[in-house]
Amino acid sequence: MSEYRQDLLSRRWVIIGSDRAARPNEFVEEPVRRQPIPCPFCAGNEHETPDAVATYSAPGRKGWLVRIVPNKYPAVTLDESLCPNCQPLGAKPPPQGTIPGFGRHEVIIESPRHVASLSELTATEADLVFQAYRDRIASLKATGQYRYVQIFKNVGPAAGASLEHVHSQLVALPGIPEVIAQELASCCDYFAMHRRPLMADLIERELAAGNRVLAHTDRFVAFCPFASRFPFEVCIAPLADQPSFEATQTSELGELSRLTVEVIGRIERAAGLVAYNCILHTQPFDTSPHDHYHWHIEIIPRLTKVAGFEWGTGCFINPLPPEAAAAHLRASPVAAISPDWKT
Amino acid sequence: MSEYRQDLLSRRWVIIGSDRAARPNEFVEEPVRRQPIPCPFCAGNEHETPDAVATYSAPGRKGWLVRIVPNKYPAVTLDESLCPNCQPLGAKPPPQGTIPGFGRHEVIIESPRHVASLSELTATEADLVFQAYRDRIASLKATGQYRYVQIFKNVGPAAGASLEHVHSQLVALPGIPEVIAQELASCCDYFAMHRRPLMADLIERELAAGNRVLAHTDRFVAFCPFASRFPFEVCIAPLADQPSFEATQTSELGELSRLTVEVIGRIERAAGLVAYNCILHTQPFDTSPHDHYHWHIEIIPRLTKVAGFEWGTGCFINPLPPEAAAAHLRASPVAAISPDWKT
Repeated sequence: MSEYRQDLLSRRWVIIGSDRAARPNEFVEEPVRRQPIPCPFCAGNEHETPDAVATYSAPGRKGWLVRIVPNKYPAVTLDESLCPNCQPLGAKPPPQGTIPGFGRHEVIIESPRHVASLSELTATEADLVFQAYRDRIASLKATGQYRYVQIFKNVGPAAGASLEHVHSQLVALPGIPEVIAQELASCCDYFAMHRRPLMADLIERELAAGNRVLAHTDRFVAFCPFASRFPFEVCIAPLADQPSFEATQTSELGELSRLTVEVIGRIERAAGLVAYNCILHTQPFDTSPHDHYHWHIEIIPRLTKVAGFEWGTGCFINPLPPEAAAAHLRASPVAAISPDWKT
Repeated sequence: MSEYRQDLLSRRWVIIGSDRAARPNEFVEEPVRRQPIPCPFCAGNEHETPDAVATYSAPGRKGWLVRIVPNKYPAVTLDESLCPNCQPLGAKPPPQGTIPGFGRHEVIIESPRHVASLSELTATEADLVFQAYRDRIASLKATGQYRYVQIFKNVGPAAGASLEHVHSQLVALPGIPEVIAQELASCCDYFAMHRRPLMADLIERELAAGNRVLAHTDRFVAFCPFASRFPFEVCIAPLADQPSFEATQTSELGELSRLTVEVIGRIERAAGLVAYNCILHTQPFDTSPHDHYHWHIEIIPRLTKVAGFEWGTGCFINPLPPEAAAAHLRASPVAAISPDWKT
């Protein structure tokens, strides 16, 4: 029999472990990844994208390894003149009033080579990607124009990617997104009730139970959340209380990047070359201190479709219990990560 | 420039009308619908599904036109022994405690013929489908075992359908889903502030503005919501205050079924044979009176992918403003609906 479970951070309900995985599917699955083609993100085609906001390279290496450019097709746009009048999201606009689409939308191109997944990055590239995340959040915070920076990655068409070349996106927003506001509220309520940080307690419980943990390092843990919405969903979080991702030290970022690449590799060997999203959750810039918040990374493989039930109820049906997912992922071999770029 | 908009009922934010529709997409779109094949839902194959809970037929017509069966692969299951101990969703389980997956999952097979979309139903079949929705909700309410019945429809693989033959699903739940709880809270707050029902005010504003309305009848209106999350998203709602779908009269259901079929037909002629979800929102069974709630039907075509940004923020990027969507849909011709079954 299936189970209802609730995620204490997002307060979302899920239905776990039903028999639905066995049901027939007469539709052919779409191909997850295409063959590489030369594309606007490949080294040598820099003229096809806007000028870089920042680039990262490595000693002794010619050219960039990570390159950040404004999104050519932005969801939100920078218009300085609108900034002072910009109402934050979460504030109440007049009924059916609109707020100009102020913000900043950038693309983080994560390798000069045309590869598709984080797992195909060299260790150097992966380290620089996480440094780029940290640095861009810090820079955009320093402008004082935004309240939140959402960093996310779409790999494969089923995950919403329109280009295959490995990249993440960044959207700087004038307001605090609903999902983050809910997480902060959960942390506040929990702290008021238990005088303990919610995320720290969740992580402690995961480490004690052990059956959903798939890997950890000195400073980070990767686990399949108790109330996973998706098969092979993974959360990566720091063990220590660390609310703001932009405060992470470069040495920690190396540990994090290697763990993240390892987790993606395990998922791809356990479930095939699936489409997936990675989503960074971090503390908004100007909220009152939430030292009990932990930034964390959500990895959601897109093996199941979000359908009418999920849209109608907000409750997700996940046929694979996270305990089984973690066991699969622990048993999945770790590939050697190339310490440096291949040519 | 794009715009932020907020939906007052769900409180969700959206980003409307960015330039992202123009962006390149190197991935080939999956085929939306396959050729018909004989399937377990076709007349003559009744032995391949569980025994019917109910069937509907028409005078002078041999055999069923609409047939309701338990789902062979249920997300939740009926176990009478668990019922009295079943904690409602929304109540606080112990941290990381689980609740048995109590509930009922049924399939509403909407035609004996192997067709895929609501728009391919005859008028008789469509009328009976909406009567079946109403009657099943009323019957399950009468058992006193559930707090909510979620009715939804997945058409096409991108919308989560695993079988093509036209059908809806019904899940009876022991708790009130998060999405509905949020809508009720919005209605309550609005009523406390304005002494007016929120949905009635939203509908009045839509009718007054007119630019998002695509069709209406004496009792119902179909419009593209102000803060649509998806291109060609449509909401169908009664003009009068009507909280509970199960209270709808048979004569009203005929009007509703014809309007719904017309709307789906318009979407398919404007946007092609897209995948889509239909989702019924109605008042939970045992909540205190919310006469200011309106049941309504959400139709969400699945032309855009839900990606990392949406998962991270809860904010949806919709490249097509609902005003433009409604204009397209109004200009899209209405097909004649076959008054009775084709053979």
